[in-house]
Amino acid sequence: MPATLDRATVEQIVREVVLGALSGSPTNGPSTTPELVVSISARHLHLTDEHVETLFGRGRTLTVQKPLFQDGFFAAEETVMVVGPRRRMLPAVRVLGPTRPYSQVELAFTDAISLGIDAPVRASGDIRGSAGCVLVGPAGVVELTEGVIRAERHVHMNQDHAAWYGVKNGDRMNLRIQGTCSVVLEDLLVRADKTSKLEVHLDTDEGNAADLDHATRIELFK
Amino acid sequence: MPATLDRATVEQIVREVVLGALSGSPTNGPSTTPELVVSISARHLHLTDEHVETLFGRGRTLTVQKPLFQDGFFAAEETVMVVGPRRRMLPAVRVLGPTRPYSQVELAFTDAISLGIDAPVRASGDIRGSAGCVLVGPAGVVELTEGVIRAERHVHMNQDHAAWYGVKNGDRMNLRIQGTCSVVLEDLLVRADKTSKLEVHLDTDEGNAADLDHATRIELFK
Repeated sequence: MPATLDRATVEQIVREVVLGALSGSPTNGPSTTPELVVSISARHLHLTDEHVETLFGRGRTLTVQKPLFQDGFFAAEETVMVVGPRRRMLPAVRVLGPTRPYSQVELAFTDAISLGIDAPVRASGDIRGSAGCVLVGPAGVVELTEGVIRAERHVHMNQDHAAWYGVKNGDRMNLRIQGTCSVVLEDLLVRADKTSKLEVHLDTDEGNAADLDHATRIELFK
Repeated sequence: MPATLDRATVEQIVREVVLGALSGSPTNGPSTTPELVVSISARHLHLTDEHVETLFGRGRTLTVQKPLFQDGFFAAEETVMVVGPRRRMLPAVRVLGPTRPYSQVELAFTDAISLGIDAPVRASGDIRGSAGCVLVGPAGVVELTEGVIRAERHVHMNQDHAAWYGVKNGDRMNLRIQGTCSVVLEDLLVRADKTSKLEVHLDTDEGNAADLDHATRIELFK
């Protein structure tokens, strides 16, 4: 059944669709079919503790607005202006918490192009040599010399899910989204660890290209 | 070889990538492989003669800015503001010519969502019951009660190309785009007639999801 979506709520940081049709037979692990959640991450950023203080004020920390699907992660109340090299800007990009050892801005290509930024496709954390930008907050400004990326599409899972699919951390899988705009997204990076919930992360370009909100069937396969 | 693209020129109405790798054997028709052009259409609109006059002034007609790949079609100098129901707007959406018997706004979902418009996926011209919007030009305003769509992905071709691929007008084909963000776009509508050049039309969500600008191989297949 297609997920329903109030189009007026699309500024929300993450849209999630749960259809959970899985292909193939379990190769191993639990015999019950894991439920598959596909989330569209809108543009967002991660900050260091130091940058939170520079942007929002001395002694300030992030305030939880809404927990995300993965335990411990959250959308913060805080937003910043992201300014590109041509003085184009996105006025309110959401900060996700918790803080990290590096600051990183994750944009869809449509966003990056509108800013005039040539964002490379990278796994989260792999920001070396990526594009820079300027972050403007209510209390200060941070100039990032690197850190603007398009997050590589990926799937989080725990070791039981990995065993079920017959994959391991670092492998690649494919995601078929069927509906009004059917696509197969290839080469999703598998990020398997001990604790993650099963969740595919796409960006808004990918989710909108596939019309994920009106999908009738979703299939994750090797 | 990947196409090169100046990211600063992305406001251009159409980005084209020619890689032309075709799969399969010709089933019929000419034995030489047709060159495949894949074009990303940015948001744009088509207008009636009457709406051109309302928006730009009595007696006004469209001015050619740049010819498009298909003979006789062009990007016009004229742009209009497109306003959604929540008073959000896109300030300068390009008009494509020539004029048509109906006015129609073609948006990617990312655009439509930013305007708060729930655009259906439709073949060009099939606007009945689609969303409306307000168009604002330098000389006047047009309220469209319908006409805002996401153009269904499609491929133009002539009868020789159709014979080569073994398809006919109205059939569906698939497009594989290989590169940094490989995808298979399924169910492209075949629009075959006597005179069209071979050209796939995608919107910006599809082109950006696939990172078409850095594609290394493109394959159109049944």
